[in-house]
Amino acid sequence: MITRSEQESARKRAAEILSKAGVVVRQDEIDQMEVVDFGLSELEQSGVQIVTLVDTEKIAAKLLVLLPNQIEPEHRHPRLGDYEGKEETIRCEWGELYLYGPGEPTLNPKGHPPEHRRRTYTVWHEYVLRPGDQITFPPNISHWFQGGPEGAVVWSFSTKVVDVEDVFTDPDVRRETVVVD
Amino acid sequence: MITRSEQESARKRAAEILSKAGVVVRQDEIDQMEVVDFGLSELEQSGVQIVTLVDTEKIAAKLLVLLPNQIEPEHRHPRLGDYEGKEETIRCEWGELYLYGPGEPTLNPKGHPPEHRRRTYTVWHEYVLRPGDQITFPPNISHWFQGGPEGAVVWSFSTKVVDVEDVFTDPDVRRETVVVD
Repeated sequence: MITRSEQESARKRAAEILSKAGVVVRQDEIDQMEVVDFGLSELEQSGVQIVTLVDTEKIAAKLLVLLPNQIEPEHRHPRLGDYEGKEETIRCEWGELYLYGPGEPTLNPKGHPPEHRRRTYTVWHEYVLRPGDQITFPPNISHWFQGGPEGAVVWSFSTKVVDVEDVFTDPDVRRETVVVD
Repeated sequence: MITRSEQESARKRAAEILSKAGVVVRQDEIDQMEVVDFGLSELEQSGVQIVTLVDTEKIAAKLLVLLPNQIEPEHRHPRLGDYEGKEETIRCEWGELYLYGPGEPTLNPKGHPPEHRRRTYTVWHEYVLRPGDQITFPPNISHWFQGGPEGAVVWSFSTKVVDVEDVFTDPDVRRETVVVD
């Protein structure tokens, strides 16, 4: 749950970070920016701001804006009937992103989930993405990421998005953000 | 057919146009830029430069660079067995793009195909795309586009790309570019 004023403030800060990246985004796309707190009510630590450029029945192209040190919690995109699940390429456009997936856990990782949620972060193989760097995750692979000290702007190029079906490791997560006045 | 030197020159000019757009592109992506003359041996008029950021079995994200007034000839992305064909969103990132698809022909269009190939351009409903503007074409819809007087940088966000299966209206087109020394 976030307040209307938290939502507005996050949108404004994300728009400022976005303006440092050189990608063209229309004002109406910025106005429709989604502020997501994953139902955890700690937006500064756990959250993401999403600007949607393309979202069809087949593919999506989105810009994800992370505020400084903000984390998108660990999740995966599962099979849904005939759809094998979302394949996603994460590409850094601005700033620095600490991205984690399955594999040998990285010693002394740069990413730091909130201490009280640490047990819900289970994959620790680190990829440090700087502008132009990218990773492609097949469907159903657990991953999470954190913006660097100045935040980050990252592309998400993917097959069809069905956000509400994403599976989060943290049972407290609710994908739909409740905004209160 | 183009010469090695035409290819190099087109790459260099396209990289200069690309540098005016703010999108981050790695040097190795620029080095692998595809220069396409569609087999017409008139690259200044008919051609495109393609920088591939993502190209998986499911989706692609590419930056198309048009030199000033350069045209990508009319084509469509047909069904291929179980694959219903490429769905493509064209989004202008820099410059101006004159894009044509089916519909009411536009009077006094800005686009001008080479006179000797004009009969191979059959769709004339015009969309003028400026930075941030975009159009999505379902599979198998004929379209063509021309860069403005300063050229253009446009995104192509799409489902799976199978360039060699594209169907061009002009029977002279060959999708694979032959480069000679």
